[in-house]
Amino acid sequence: MKIKNICILGAGTLGSRVALQAAISGYIVTVYDVEQKSLDFSLATMQKLLGQFHKSGQLSKGQEREVLGRIKFTLDPMEAVDDADFINESVTEEADVKKKVWRQFGKIAPKKTIFTTNTSYMLPSMFAEDSGRPTRFCAFHFHDVFYSRVVDIMPHPGTDPSLIPLLEDLGRKLNQVPVTLKKENPGYIFNTMLMALIGAAGKLLTGEVASIEDIDRSWMVNFHMPMGPFGILDSIGLDTAWHVTHKMPDRASVAFAALLKTYLDQGKLGEKTGEGFYSYPNPKYKAQDFVK
Amino acid sequence: MKIKNICILGAGTLGSRVALQAAISGYIVTVYDVEQKSLDFSLATMQKLLGQFHKSGQLSKGQEREVLGRIKFTLDPMEAVDDADFINESVTEEADVKKKVWRQFGKIAPKKTIFTTNTSYMLPSMFAEDSGRPTRFCAFHFHDVFYSRVVDIMPHPGTDPSLIPLLEDLGRKLNQVPVTLKKENPGYIFNTMLMALIGAAGKLLTGEVASIEDIDRSWMVNFHMPMGPFGILDSIGLDTAWHVTHKMPDRASVAFAALLKTYLDQGKLGEKTGEGFYSYPNPKYKAQDFVK
Ligand SMILES: NC(=O)c1ccc[n+]([C@@H]2O[C@H](COP(=O)([O-])OP(=O)(O)OC[C@H]3O[C@@H](n4cnc5c(N)ncnc54)[C@H](O)[C@@H]3O)[C@@H](O)[C@H]2O)c1
Ligand SMILES: NC(=O)c1ccc[n+]([C@@H]2O[C@H](COP(=O)([O-])OP(=O)(O)OC[C@H]3O[C@@H](n4cnc5c(N)ncnc54)[C@H](O)[C@@H]3O)[C@@H](O)[C@H]2O)c1
Repeated sequence: MKIKNICILGAGTLGSRVALQAAISGYIVTVYDVEQKSLDFSLATMQKLLGQFHKSGQLSKGQEREVLGRIKFTLDPMEAVDDADFINESVTEEADVKKKVWRQFGKIAPKKTIFTTNTSYMLPSMFAEDSGRPTRFCAFHFHDVFYSRVVDIMPHPGTDPSLIPLLEDLGRKLNQVPVTLKKENPGYIFNTMLMALIGAAGKLLTGEVASIEDIDRSWMVNFHMPMGPFGILDSIGLDTAWHVTHKMPDRASVAFAALLKTYLDQGKLGEKTGEGFYSYPNPKYKAQDFVK
Repeated sequence: MKIKNICILGAGTLGSRVALQAAISGYIVTVYDVEQKSLDFSLATMQKLLGQFHKSGQLSKGQEREVLGRIKFTLDPMEAVDDADFINESVTEEADVKKKVWRQFGKIAPKKTIFTTNTSYMLPSMFAEDSGRPTRFCAFHFHDVFYSRVVDIMPHPGTDPSLIPLLEDLGRKLNQVPVTLKKENPGYIFNTMLMALIGAAGKLLTGEVASIEDIDRSWMVNFHMPMGPFGILDSIGLDTAWHVTHKMPDRASVAFAALLKTYLDQGKLGEKTGEGFYSYPNPKYKAQDFVK
């Protein structure tokens, strides 16, 4: 089957970025949300990104107009799925919200529509039945679409295997590098590894082996990377990290979750609140002399 | 105290690199080994590196000569430690060899000499008593000196704390970024984190969640890195990874060590044998289309 019309459910940070990339790739895109202010935010986000692409010479003004011309915003579910070949659901990361959305759209979407969820921390099997179309249901998970161009394709046990090559092809057309999971795994591939790295960094810190700065320095200098695990944590958000960590049973995770909690209790959630392990907008690790 | 004369014990891969950097930094360097062929290898290694630095415009021919003029090679222990302010021991990574060397040099080194070991996987407390000078004994661990410019300073419980700032200063003078551990920790800082990352990658592989290629792709594309965990494993050596992994008690490490063993049994140790998870000299992950 040929995918032409793409429907994005949820016009937040990720939905807007996926929608924009889809339109840049030439698809006809409809963006749906329950809140007008989310749709307004979405358009503003896209305009800002297009402005950046224009500045860096990736798109001309004419192309910008064309891209936006392929995107429709709507509060009407029927209009959203009208003739949709493909849905990527990027609504709020809460099981109840996602279940509700899939029950709703499973009923009204055309028969041909492929269903995908962009959930970061949940599993497609949690919503496949709600959609009423489990064999056509799969996770299709982006990272940030433009800087980290990976899309995870993660089937649940009931996903029709013939969907996979189709999604891999779509991933490439959306300018992503598709990676395919053979089974469900919380955190997909990258987050599983990132969390292991962050867990080890947390253990070094709570075990009083080394300082935040020296742990980050070791990573940055050895791998020539612009941030270390604590800088990364600040950009992910300490609340998100705590959500993932505090359910883990091992001693090191318990200790690290407890440490993260002391930051949360002080309102220090990382970059977004201006303070986490470092202070923003000019964190120490970005200073010239940090790795000297 | 002012460090002027540096003695390097062990003229292998790391000893040669540390010695060369010390001479580049202006120190008078003596390189000691038990084998003449190691000393010959060492000089050849240094000449090759100097050739590269010359080519990239970092050093002139005149500077190259000056640098080599500051380095002496010897098979004579007494000549090696004569007037040495500082020893960095880079002999073979075997406890017995290192113990013997420290018993020997602890007796003949001048009173002023600071003792350090470059061990990657052992702890300074294993050799501090052998040296007869435990308060003046510390780990001073390099990565590869020129590309990954981190030096770990890891005291054992008996190290005199006043040694630390001195070693940090020396680290900087050797063009490294010093990071200081507050206590002994196997794998220092970076290797602890790297092993956690590799362990998570191994678990994804042995758990049949994703392929070697897709695991590496996820890491490379998300972090804009030139290799992923399996490419890194190939460059570290699968034998080294197995040595670290096979003693770990958890199920995932046991499974991964067993998988690594199947490679070792086939003589596939990674880049150095031409085959590991990838085939060399042109591993798949370096191909243009790997992350497309
Ligand atoms: N933020 C990231 O970095 C990131 C990365 C990859 C995937 N994701 C995933 O994408 C999804 C969205 O994340 P986000 O960061 O964009 O969140 P967000 O809060 O920015 O956006 C969520 C949007 O969903 C809308 N919404 C809520 N209920 C809805 C409903 N019933 N119907 C339609 N829309 C509804 C909200 O109004 C909001 O606009 C989550 O599943 C998240 O795990 C996020
Ligand atoms: N290779 C690395 O990437 C790396 C990185 C950091 C630290 N290290 C550490 O540096 C040390 C040396 O590693 P390498 O890779 O250079 O090994 P290597 O095998 O290349 O060199 C070891 C040298 O020690 C010499 N030697 C053996 N017994 C000796 C003795 N009694 N007295 C003097 N010299 C003796 C050998 O002849 C050989 O030249 C190890 O402790 C290792 O853990 C290695």
